Amino acid sequence: MCADDRAHEIAPRSGVAFTLDKGDRLTVIDPRGEQVADLLAFNRHDLDEVVSSGRTLDYASRIYLTTGDALYSNRSNVLLRIVEDTVGRHDFLLTPCSADTFRIIYGDAQPHRGCFGNLAAALAPFGIAPDRIPVAFNCFMNVVIDGATGTLSVEPPLSRAGDHITFEAVTDLVIGLTACSALQSNNGRFKPIHYRVNPYTTGGQKS
Amino acid sequence: MCADDRAHEIAPRSGVAFTLDKGDRLTVIDPRGEQVADLLAFNRHDLDEVVSSGRTLDYASRIYLTTGDALYSNRSNVLLRIVEDTVGRHDFLLTPCSADTFRIIYGDAQPHRGCFGNLAAALAPFGIAPDRIPVAFNCFMNVVIDGATGTLSVEPPLSRAGDHITFEAVTDLVIGLTACSALQSNNGRFKPIHYRVNPYTTGGQKS
Repeated sequence: MCADDRAHEIAPRSGVAFTLDKGDRLTVIDPRGEQVADLLAFNRHDLDEVVSSGRTLDYASRIYLTTGDALYSNRSNVLLRIVEDTVGRHDFLLTPCSADTFRIIYGDAQPHRGCFGNLAAALAPFGIAPDRIPVAFNCFMNVVIDGATGTLSVEPPLSRAGDHITFEAVTDLVIGLTACSALQSNNGRFKPIHYRVNPYTTGGQKS
Repeated sequence: MCADDRAHEIAPRSGVAFTLDKGDRLTVIDPRGEQVADLLAFNRHDLDEVVSSGRTLDYASRIYLTTGDALYSNRSNVLLRIVEDTVGRHDFLLTPCSADTFRIIYGDAQPHRGCFGNLAAALAPFGIAPDRIPVAFNCFMNVVIDGATGTLSVEPPLSRAGDHITFEAVTDLVIGLTACSALQSNNGRFKPIHYRVNPYTTGGQKS
């Protein structure tokens, strides 16, 4: 299904959840370009510990994160570290798109469940409730801030076909990951996302 | 204790929690100027519903909120609405300062528990656990963003003595509120915060 036969495909407007072991590397690939992937991470051994935008941005003193930056939890532990990044523009301000997003921002009468609904469904088997979903790390999402007015605008992603971002798991994790469902975030076209997990022990494929 | 005898005082580097009824107005006052107050709001009838920076900023399409703006929950309901604001610069990106903040950013060996610890202690009697504390709405906190690089800097608050921000409760709430404990956020001096609650029914004093 993927050009890289070690990679998994997330169909357009859908999401998955899976585990990572400490030291595993997760590569999120934009196979066609201009497609966002919302990423969540929970401590697999204590699901109340979850990635925190507020702590991460505070410690980084930056809203745009890239290679070398850490994603901290709500308990100030590092959950993931960015070890490669061919794009350099991702968002960590906004919650996953949701039925509410489509209702409030797009005015949809019968809204799609969005990344929020996809993440909630994918994470449910791990015992993670929808209310536990915080701001996600939105890979490839291009949110531009006007520093003077504070206005934010969601612009087309800077990612081109084949671009990727790679994370190293600093502890054992449950990951939620989507191919984002919001038109504006993805320059008007819903595309798949690919991802690959390379285990720490071998550097090779992980089933 | 306060110049305004209807107001309550929050001592420097401390915090409180209290309830609001739907329609009540909460005024947060900076009595001396350049002092931040971290604000949290929970649905009093279902504490899993809590203020959400990610949803709020998404719907506002702005990172700086002021009069007329709504603070949304993680379920996309409006919890509070800003009805008056004499400052116009507040933060909704960063988590409350904490022992971790002081350890990681300031290098303190024996760190203060910060707004996070103060909020956790104040909210505990309401049955709210520390892990349920998200990004707070940081009244008067002045976080400046460089739109080009994404660098954020915590600058002295723009609030002067007597400045205030007033919120209307859109539903019954549990509120957490602090006089912030971080040197950098408060231009190097720890000062009190005052607050006043005006009930919907009379517009007068609430005990």
